[in-house]
Amino acid sequence: MSLYLHDIPLPRARSRLAAALKDAKLWRVLGMESIPLDENALGRVLAQSIWAKISSPHYHASAMDGFAVRAIMTNGASPAAPLNLEIGPDAEYVDTGDPLPEWADAVIPIENVESLDEHGEITKEIRRPKTVRIRAAVAPWSQVRPLGEDIVATQLVLSAGHVLRAVDLGAIAAAGYDGINVARKPRVAILPTGSELVPLGSKLKPGDILEYNSLVLAAQIKSMGGEPTRFPITKDDFDVICQRVEEAAQNHDLILLNAGSSAGAEDYSSMVVEKLGTLLVHGVAVRPGHPVILGMVNRISGNLIPIMGVPGYPVSAALTIEIFVEPLMAKWLGREPNELPVETALLTRKINSPAGDEDYVRVAVGKVDEKLLAAPLARGAGVITSLVQADGLVILPPGVQGVEAGEKVHVHLYKSRAELERTIFCIGSHDLTLDLLAQYLAEQDRRFVSANVGSQGGLVALRRGEAHLAGSHLFDPRTGEFNISYIREYMPDIPVKVVALARREQGLLLRRGNPKGINSLGDLSRPAVRFVNRQRGAGTRVLLDYHLSRMGISPEMIQGYNQEEYTHLGVAAAVASGRADCGLGIAAAAQALDLDFIPLFQERYDLVIPKQFADNELLAPLFGLLSGRALREAVSKLKGYDVSVMGTVILEDE
Amino acid sequence: MSLYLHDIPLPRARSRLAAALKDAKLWRVLGMESIPLDENALGRVLAQSIWAKISSPHYHASAMDGFAVRAIMTNGASPAAPLNLEIGPDAEYVDTGDPLPEWADAVIPIENVESLDEHGEITKEIRRPKTVRIRAAVAPWSQVRPLGEDIVATQLVLSAGHVLRAVDLGAIAAAGYDGINVARKPRVAILPTGSELVPLGSKLKPGDILEYNSLVLAAQIKSMGGEPTRFPITKDDFDVICQRVEEAAQNHDLILLNAGSSAGAEDYSSMVVEKLGTLLVHGVAVRPGHPVILGMVNRISGNLIPIMGVPGYPVSAALTIEIFVEPLMAKWLGREPNELPVETALLTRKINSPAGDEDYVRVAVGKVDEKLLAAPLARGAGVITSLVQADGLVILPPGVQGVEAGEKVHVHLYKSRAELERTIFCIGSHDLTLDLLAQYLAEQDRRFVSANVGSQGGLVALRRGEAHLAGSHLFDPRTGEFNISYIREYMPDIPVKVVALARREQGLLLRRGNPKGINSLGDLSRPAVRFVNRQRGAGTRVLLDYHLSRMGISPEMIQGYNQEEYTHLGVAAAVASGRADCGLGIAAAAQALDLDFIPLFQERYDLVIPKQFADNELLAPLFGLLSGRALREAVSKLKGYDVSVMGTVILEDE
Repeated sequence: MSLYLHDIPLPRARSRLAAALKDAKLWRVLGMESIPLDENALGRVLAQSIWAKISSPHYHASAMDGFAVRAIMTNGASPAAPLNLEIGPDAEYVDTGDPLPEWADAVIPIENVESLDEHGEITKEIRRPKTVRIRAAVAPWSQVRPLGEDIVATQLVLSAGHVLRAVDLGAIAAAGYDGINVARKPRVAILPTGSELVPLGSKLKPGDILEYNSLVLAAQIKSMGGEPTRFPITKDDFDVICQRVEEAAQNHDLILLNAGSSAGAEDYSSMVVEKLGTLLVHGVAVRPGHPVILGMVNRISGNLIPIMGVPGYPVSAALTIEIFVEPLMAKWLGREPNELPVETALLTRKINSPAGDEDYVRVAVGKVDEKLLAAPLARGAGVITSLVQADGLVILPPGVQGVEAGEKVHVHLYKSRAELERTIFCIGSHDLTLDLLAQYLAEQDRRFVSANVGSQGGLVALRRGEAHLAGSHLFDPRTGEFNISYIREYMPDIPVKVVALARREQGLLLRRGNPKGINSLGDLSRPAVRFVNRQRGAGTRVLLDYHLSRMGISPEMIQGYNQEEYTHLGVAAAVASGRADCGLGIAAAAQALDLDFIPLFQERYDLVIPKQFADNELLAPLFGLLSGRALREAVSKLKGYDVSVMGTVILEDE
Repeated sequence: MSLYLHDIPLPRARSRLAAALKDAKLWRVLGMESIPLDENALGRVLAQSIWAKISSPHYHASAMDGFAVRAIMTNGASPAAPLNLEIGPDAEYVDTGDPLPEWADAVIPIENVESLDEHGEITKEIRRPKTVRIRAAVAPWSQVRPLGEDIVATQLVLSAGHVLRAVDLGAIAAAGYDGINVARKPRVAILPTGSELVPLGSKLKPGDILEYNSLVLAAQIKSMGGEPTRFPITKDDFDVICQRVEEAAQNHDLILLNAGSSAGAEDYSSMVVEKLGTLLVHGVAVRPGHPVILGMVNRISGNLIPIMGVPGYPVSAALTIEIFVEPLMAKWLGREPNELPVETALLTRKINSPAGDEDYVRVAVGKVDEKLLAAPLARGAGVITSLVQADGLVILPPGVQGVEAGEKVHVHLYKSRAELERTIFCIGSHDLTLDLLAQYLAEQDRRFVSANVGSQGGLVALRRGEAHLAGSHLFDPRTGEFNISYIREYMPDIPVKVVALARREQGLLLRRGNPKGINSLGDLSRPAVRFVNRQRGAGTRVLLDYHLSRMGISPEMIQGYNQEEYTHLGVAAAVASGRADCGLGIAAAAQALDLDFIPLFQERYDLVIPKQFADNELLAPLFGLLSGRALREAVSKLKGYDVSVMGTVILEDE
């Protein structure tokens, strides 16, 4: 057993799997099944092309309610010289869809005739007159749907491999079918393994990991057109895992063995594959997700089926399925592989990338002033919310070691252009109220995407035209004011509108019961006190530095001053977990994680909006919320917030 | 009862419905239901925002297999000055995901240490050594996933109204949920009515109409997130329809009454709505689909529910659902309405549009040389294949009476950009082999879209840069050759490659048994013989005119010379239905509709490809098929085709 995985390039991993599947005659549509033509056929893939069995219409049909006539007999009719046609020999009433009488070749719509009774008088029996009077000639075949207008028997209606939509079902029905042959759904077994795994709903103790990868994998398989089976959790026991795999192999087309795919003490997946079949690949040069296993295992029947060792981190697992399983499902179903649209965007922040790996970077995407911007999200393979928040993927090929801020990148978009058009892109300081704002904006047809880079970072982003607005709470010790002087410094010459969101308390976040007896900023310099700080440029950090310098406390005197978190909740979590004894943050964060809180100062949190966006239709619902009641009430329920200033215009440039 | 519908503008129809629904308190999410968090939650809409109940990870977790340490104790370690850490007091082995011991604050990956036994020798017991030797210091919190790295308790994970994707389910699970509240699916009753309707699979007689609208409607409702119920066909009987509607009203949220929505003799829908409730709208200014009914009907409970009279023509029916029901379903589910991406394209052919109506024009879309082109498809409301073939919709607002060829239009795209990138756009003469070609190309990752405008029309389109290739079979009486002289005339200065597709027989298509005793072109001038012609510019028409003039027969001598069809199958259908006694066309068309056929001449059908596209990657699979066996064999099975020339290069410019 090796400690290291020898990652091979992605294309080589793919071709090894494809070659093994070709050998096993599994690199093609798995099979087909007959199903009735009903709404459950939606999304299925045609296994055979549909050639029309019948024509539609299958007879010459009247296209209107009216009178069937011989066109030649209407010649000469005009407003000045009306013409009478006798019902029976010359004209016959037809409803829309009725077959044209053998002798007729046109239909005059009922609203274009006058219906006359036996005395030549206008009658109310408009559909059963003795005579009709017309005042215009009609061309042959007018208001007739000729046989085969829609479909002519024998024509190709839809090709094999087509994924069925609602209208397709109608066309297939019109072509004379009441059942169809579709590709059978690939059956995929999902086996979660790991002694640390516990099912959803379990009461958790440290070390327990909620098993939800099988849920995500099953949903991915389902949305790709497959039929997933989720197996119960298997402990890390080589023999039991082997038994489960052998069992699953008998009636599935693919086995996904989740986790144990690396080279750790209890990573049995590669050994399982080696015992039950052939290991093709162990380790692929992709990030996240490199500890992938590809192999084939034997069935009792002697046939082979593919098995995949899927990495345990949720982002790795989900991306592995996209990278390796989606193309396989496409092949097995005979459809085109799913493709994401690709657009060019500007990167808002530098990213580093491991040399030699294909690197999948999740990004938030916003459109600001016609520029598409991609803001990299958390890189960790364990951060599933980075996939949830991702509007797209930037895939850096092997060899690219990083991309600078402002450079162009190709983004594979999860979101439609329309969604990007209604996205409000906010960069700056983090505040809990932004989550509430996002929720209320979602009800008003706006996506609110916020990237947390601190107050100063937000103003810099605005200067570069990389956001619609920024949240800021920068205190200026010289003026005693918030934000204004910083706005002038960081984004001179850019006219802005500044609107207050709320006043909030900043204070010390302390472990429950305050075991270290911390009461003021002065205690931070005590040797036993471990502090957790916010990152440079954060408004909270500016506030801290101001007060520390007033008190004559230098950063070196504080243990943990250089330990940085990027959000208030991050600071709170550090304290809650015991990683630090205290941090500076807002009351709401303390409340969220059940911490003690000592209020120190009140500050104002503003939204800074360049004028060019302030009057934009996109932001209109935001201003509506700031002056309305719903958001105000929701924010006032958060501890430490004062909403009396909400919506106040602090500054508005000409 | 009125004969005419007084169509009202679409926005007014929409707002009347919205107002009535607001009055009935139905202009909002209908309700929610609790469901378990499993893969069946895919596609459901969150009815409540997800705020994290727990943090993820909920403890400090090791991010790697390795040794937990205190970072401060590693200070000073370097390659030159390795440091030993004793297992127990100084270091402890942890697997990925294990909780960090209380005293530790960093993890050193196992591959970065040397494992030593009690004698200080390297041991194979890499996970159970006595001591580990390190050659580098580590920073605090390195290789640790701190509590809350992914999710911090209380944070917003997903907002209400979000449509659930696979990764979302994982994030919701990680936030501590094992069940969720989603919007309940709106229940939609679909009532097909009409005495002429017969179910799929019926043996058809003239006047029978296959009832497949309810299938399309049900599939549309399903794909919008609703729960459709298809009722059996109801005859045109006012009382029975009323009874069915009342029955459906009790346990559904919306009733779709299909057909009978116009003002014909047996169009009862508006009377049904008036009897059972309130008629809001009868007739909307949209094409196709103007005879729409909107109303409210009473339940026994006293509540109201909306009812919609959906027009009978399949295109009208499907578009009505898109226009009126999709926004309603979005409102009822609390999700965003589905939106199609919009692109600008050039119209290939003039379209006329009724003044005053909102006009929905189905178009095929291709990308030729960076230009997006929109080719209008059949306009008839009965032509469901126009929706199947549609790559997009051009919506002309009321007041626009038409758009000229070459003008810019906005296309609401059904197809992705990626699909358009692999679309081969062919305009020109129609041939059955193009259907086969389309089918084989579909297997090779290419969409083949062909618009039939005749041979000359195809060459003109190539000159205008509006297609990748054109099918042509233009005979030049002066040279005795096909196509070349026309290519030079219609598209001078454009270098081309011309490749033969097949030779095929042209001849007379006759009714089975040849009742009129037609034996040659000479018989076309007999007074009793009704002919059906191809359109001006079609190669077949050129051929006919050539031979007629040689024989001294003038067009005026032929009954039906001006009756034009656009395809061979169209001509065959005209003969099969008895609308004409004979036409000129290819043998395959006669075979398709079981007609008699008298071969007259053989002609060559070529593909004309501008050089700029001939070497394009897009067209590579086409040339592969022309030189391969599969297509050749398939075409040779069609009656009257000679494939010996297939793939022969007739002409290739420098």
